[in-house]
Amino acid sequence: MRVDGRQADELRHIQIETDYLKHPEGSVLITVGDTKVICTASIEERVPPFLRGEGKGWISAEYSMLPRATGTRNIRESSKGKVSGRTMEIQRLIGRALRAVVDLAAIGERTIWIDCDVIQADGGTRTASITGAFVAMTMAIAKLAEEKELPAFPVTDFLAATSVGIIEEEGVILDLNYIEDSAAMVDMNVVMTGSGEFVELQGTGEESTFTAHQLQEMLAAAEKGMKELTALQKEVLGEISQKIGAAAE
Amino acid sequence: MRVDGRQADELRHIQIETDYLKHPEGSVLITVGDTKVICTASIEERVPPFLRGEGKGWISAEYSMLPRATGTRNIRESSKGKVSGRTMEIQRLIGRALRAVVDLAAIGERTIWIDCDVIQADGGTRTASITGAFVAMTMAIAKLAEEKELPAFPVTDFLAATSVGIIEEEGVILDLNYIEDSAAMVDMNVVMTGSGEFVELQGTGEESTFTAHQLQEMLAAAEKGMKELTALQKEVLGEISQKIGAAAE
Amino acid sequence: MRVDGRQADELRHIQIETDYLKHPEGSVLITVGDTKVICTASIEERVPPFLRGEGKGWISAEYSMLPRATGTRNIRESSKGKVSGRTMEIQRLIGRALRAVVDLAAIGERTIWIDCDVIQADGGTRTASITGAFVAMTMAIAKLAEEKELPAFPVTDFLAATSVGIIEEEGVILDLNYIEDSAAMVDMNVVMTGSGEFVELQGTGEESTFTAHQLQEMLAAAEKGMKELTALQKEVLGEISQKIGAAAE
Amino acid sequence: MRVDGRQADELRHIQIETDYLKHPEGSVLITVGDTKVICTASIEERVPPFLRGEGKGWISAEYSMLPRATGTRNIRESSKGKVSGRTMEIQRLIGRALRAVVDLAAIGERTIWIDCDVIQADGGTRTASITGAFVAMTMAIAKLAEEKELPAFPVTDFLAATSVGIIEEEGVILDLNYIEDSAAMVDMNVVMTGSGEFVELQGTGEESTFTAHQLQEMLAAAEKGMKELTALQKEVLGEISQKIGAAAE
Amino acid sequence: MRVDGRQADELRHIQIETDYLKHPEGSVLITVGDTKVICTASIEERVPPFLRGEGKGWISAEYSMLPRATGTRNIRESSKGKVSGRTMEIQRLIGRALRAVVDLAAIGERTIWIDCDVIQADGGTRTASITGAFVAMTMAIAKLAEEKELPAFPVTDFLAATSVGIIEEEGVILDLNYIEDSAAMVDMNVVMTGSGEFVELQGTGEESTFTAHQLQEMLAAAEKGMKELTALQKEVLGEISQKIGAAAE
Amino acid sequence: MRVDGRQADELRHIQIETDYLKHPEGSVLITVGDTKVICTASIEERVPPFLRGEGKGWISAEYSMLPRATGTRNIRESSKGKVSGRTMEIQRLIGRALRAVVDLAAIGERTIWIDCDVIQADGGTRTASITGAFVAMTMAIAKLAEEKELPAFPVTDFLAATSVGIIEEEGVILDLNYIEDSAAMVDMNVVMTGSGEFVELQGTGEESTFTAHQLQEMLAAAEKGMKELTALQKEVLGEISQKIGAAAE
Repeated sequence: MRVDGRQADELRHIQIETDYLKHPEGSVLITVGDTKVICTASIEERVPPFLRGEGKGWISAEYSMLPRATGTRNIRESSKGKVSGRTMEIQRLIGRALRAVVDLAAIGERTIWIDCDVIQADGGTRTASITGAFVAMTMAIAKLAEEKELPAFPVTDFLAATSVGIIEEEGVILDLNYIEDSAAMVDMNVVMTGSGEFVELQGTGEESTFTAHQLQEMLAAAEKGMKELTALQKEVLGEISQKIGAAAE
Repeated sequence: MRVDGRQADELRHIQIETDYLKHPEGSVLITVGDTKVICTASIEERVPPFLRGEGKGWISAEYSMLPRATGTRNIRESSKGKVSGRTMEIQRLIGRALRAVVDLAAIGERTIWIDCDVIQADGGTRTASITGAFVAMTMAIAKLAEEKELPAFPVTDFLAATSVGIIEEEGVILDLNYIEDSAAMVDMNVVMTGSGEFVELQGTGEESTFTAHQLQEMLAAAEKGMKELTALQKEVLGEISQKIGAAAE
Repeated sequence: MRVDGRQADELRHIQIETDYLKHPEGSVLITVGDTKVICTASIEERVPPFLRGEGKGWISAEYSMLPRATGTRNIRESSKGKVSGRTMEIQRLIGRALRAVVDLAAIGERTIWIDCDVIQADGGTRTASITGAFVAMTMAIAKLAEEKELPAFPVTDFLAATSVGIIEEEGVILDLNYIEDSAAMVDMNVVMTGSGEFVELQGTGEESTFTAHQLQEMLAAAEKGMKELTALQKEVLGEISQKIGAAAE
Repeated sequence: MRVDGRQADELRHIQIETDYLKHPEGSVLITVGDTKVICTASIEERVPPFLRGEGKGWISAEYSMLPRATGTRNIRESSKGKVSGRTMEIQRLIGRALRAVVDLAAIGERTIWIDCDVIQADGGTRTASITGAFVAMTMAIAKLAEEKELPAFPVTDFLAATSVGIIEEEGVILDLNYIEDSAAMVDMNVVMTGSGEFVELQGTGEESTFTAHQLQEMLAAAEKGMKELTALQKEVLGEISQKIGAAAE
Repeated sequence: MRVDGRQADELRHIQIETDYLKHPEGSVLITVGDTKVICTASIEERVPPFLRGEGKGWISAEYSMLPRATGTRNIRESSKGKVSGRTMEIQRLIGRALRAVVDLAAIGERTIWIDCDVIQADGGTRTASITGAFVAMTMAIAKLAEEKELPAFPVTDFLAATSVGIIEEEGVILDLNYIEDSAAMVDMNVVMTGSGEFVELQGTGEESTFTAHQLQEMLAAAEKGMKELTALQKEVLGEISQKIGAAAE
Repeated sequence: MRVDGRQADELRHIQIETDYLKHPEGSVLITVGDTKVICTASIEERVPPFLRGEGKGWISAEYSMLPRATGTRNIRESSKGKVSGRTMEIQRLIGRALRAVVDLAAIGERTIWIDCDVIQADGGTRTASITGAFVAMTMAIAKLAEEKELPAFPVTDFLAATSVGIIEEEGVILDLNYIEDSAAMVDMNVVMTGSGEFVELQGTGEESTFTAHQLQEMLAAAEKGMKELTALQKEVLGEISQKIGAAAE
């Protein structure tokens, strides 16, 4: 039995509240247990310099935490004057993951800015960010598709993320909260598409290692969680869901 | 009649949701019309270097906006690597205002960190921050007063803030939203105590000026708004309200 | 009696030495008691990006102190690699105040850079900066008006600034020096036009508050000082004085 | 057949030149095809603040490229004034990987600084850095073990890294050079111990995805490469090899 | 004949106004033709970390220019967030030069901060800074010697600086102004002691070269100028002059 | 006899390995005793903003040290977020020196970037950088001259650098290593052309001074060293040597 009473392969309670803010083209509040992240998607009518004139778009993500998202107050990165390595790693991951399920040519010369701001943290903030950002981005793209004539609906598949890990006494567990994450010998983030393919796999033995067999067990647990996450995304996206991947078929 | 149907001296609809986050010692979500700010108060068991050994505490505030709190996306200050002049002005104002109603000696050698994070902006974010931060701070201090023996309850009076301004066709108005703020010839932020004294008065004629008579009109409107704000704070603070200023009497 | 023997509503001895430096389009050394500020005005033939093509100009101010302008040496902001919140507040104030008495359309697509460098500080450096910068700016504009055909003389009114405050034993006083400023319970900076209207009003009760009655007393003292400052500006500007506000009449 | 004539599961020619520099406690020049990295290990007699008094050590890594390690000149990160997200990701990976095979308590309150400076880049610089840094670090630790009495030899296992990937026409390949890396649909970095356990697994489908089956194929290729890398490390470390993991047995 | 009518080996008109500011321990305004520099010396009762406990002091210099010291406005280094290479070179030179004539052990564990702020620039700002800073520093040290018991008067010799250069049509000239400096093929800064020894010699052929013979000519001109500078320093320092180098004899 | 057995006017063993790296247009590894520097030259097809449209090129140099080039590890300037004064001085010197022997008009609107990265330091890294960079630059220019039609071969003379100094017991010595450099009372860097003219002369008495006679002795030693350096450059450049200065004749 886990610290919060869950089964080893059980996700925390997850909610995705859409249209959470009035200004952004897409916005959600995703809640995964006690982890809460505001994810917004903004459409900018130009691309970064390295893509100008290429006829395709870009997706760029930023991630931040409120100072008291955590148990003790963190100094703001704006006060420190620089973004930490951890933040950079996370925002690069979010952007890369979303780009894997978007036809960048179909969005035209536009940038979709994804902002994931963690309001409250209890483990799994980067995977919650990806799962929530996918919904905010898809809603922003659907709005864009209504206003502008796009060659095809640019979202090619669903995309969600979760964590799996190994704790000494409990073995492989799914969707680690903060306490579990601190105790884990191995921590793996998995990003998958709705059709069950991997987009990103990041497994780390922090001062520890893991065997090929343990890897298989973790991947199996992740796959189970991923199906539930995709189902929830489908539900909150409603009719927009039917457009996803339609062009690909 | 104003753009949103209000009377000239009418505040927007205001809500203060307490205990909004689980980690901070005090936290609220304050909603003023479409402006939403998360205010948290964190207690740190030490003071800045310039106060060490003085036997008194300090209150320090930080202010930030989510990139899409506004109609177009703002670049994060952490990405720019520096905090803007506007942000600095606001966070200095919030800290200074709160310090005026706290007996710093009574909190001991501790720092109270105030964080005001604007989730959604529609004008008046700095005054909403002060009004909300006062509640978050008072709740954090009440919790501190329960856990540690303080010489007196350190909060000496209520404190709230609002804006007043002059619009060409409408004259003096109270609590400007974003559209009004953009159109205003004069913009004044007023911070007052529960007993009706000024803590801070900042009136600016942006490419314009104002007369002594107009100043009096604006102060009258501000005073009316302030009473309503203090009443709301009293209500959400409940029993804690009775401790405020008790030591002073 | 005040620490330096002045009456409560008496300004310090003030001098404005024009054409202090040979390179800038306008420059003064303003001396207010022991406070000395070099104010220069530079004309740049372009505007900031947000104004390009708008057919109007801009006024931007920067403020700095020599490391030994004060009793103990301050670390340079260039060495720290960032500008402090205090500096930003002051330079935003100076720019905003000057823009209130300049017809930006009449200067054309040009930026007037104001630089206020405090050589020696004894309280009131920001108000001395405004009073001196007005003269330097007006001289630079007069030179511009001679060289280029402007639609009208762009300076619409005189502009000066002073401080007022409340000291426990002495009550309301005008033009605080450093010792008085350190002891003051309330400190208010007032920026006014030659015709007696307010441009900016910033009153702060540092760990203290003030009543509506005290506010009136302070405003009265400020008004008296302001008249003397405008008279001095008129004198040092000589013939140029007659062009100020002429277009408005 | 691959662009440089290798078999799909064939490593490039690899050389590790030890004692490459005279000052560091450990140093190597590792050559992997045309990729050349100088790896040094420095012993510092103190730990970062978060570890002080814990009785254990730390390993911290930094990574950099000479401006002309690549085909076109890169601007130095020192000139830009900040370290890129890519650099941060790589140096965090190197440090984390090395810490997995070192008994931090056994090195005492010391920091081992690892510096990986890429002299010439042709793909796989981060995996070459890990493979080379392991040797430099082990040599520095062996020297430390000779001079100070350590409770046990702190290196618990061998550690090396390589890349695997998928290229459209060629399928799964081992140890990608720059041309292959640019063409790859999937890129995976694998860090393993001498006893065949995973330390880190980072698989990324850049604008693409991969199946569970493809994952198994990549892991098999990586395992083959890893055995050859460990064999080479054993050879260049000579007698020191026998101390590795001895304490664990 | 030179552009301003001087002889080839003639210095510009030089003035050193002592006690220019009221706060610093030593301060001068040095005027060399149209070049004007405020030099101050501040005594700090501690030394930089690398000297703590060594029983000797340090001299550290900073140099800056007002934005409009020059013909076109320079962006402040505080706004750019970093100090330029030119500024660093100059302030390192000033500090190094002064340290050559001060017995650092005799000043005790103190730092003397030298600040050279160029109010108006017309060539030779770095050499004027050294010549002026020597006087400000010596006055600050004389004040220190009066207040504290020092083992000996710490200033061991006079110190001044000037420039020499080669202009195509005019040959070797002394003390270049801005126009001459811009036209010079060779520019050399010479720092010498009162007893005629070199402290620093920096000769640069900017896109040009110079022969050994030309070097001798330049050194001869520099020596002549240096004697006049030392004589002026002796005059303005008055009685303090007699203490300089007294301990050495 | 010197610490490493050399005569007073004897250079250390010097080697210049050309084509050291595969990507840059020119690259060498220069070894001067135990000092080793990688010098590369990169051709960029544009010039800095201040030269656009002038029809001439530019040469810009950057200098850096690996963290363990020295006995104790230096913190990287990229981690500190700024380049030190020492680094700036050195890279400005390298660029200025090279520009003195290149006909900038003949290279056209191009920038030649020089990168000097010190792999191992034992004194004299800046002079070794200049001597090595000259060779790398000349080879890059020769390649450019083959590919593009240049009006003339742009390198007008050979260029090399060395150090001379004064040590108390030994007098004037040539080419100081680290131990000698630390002990020297006077340190002088000399940059000369192949035809024996000075390009740069920087003599510094660190907390010491030197006479005109000592200066002559140092210059004589430098001249002897310089001839040997030029001879070596001629040898490694082979046929390219004959093009140097040919246009000038």
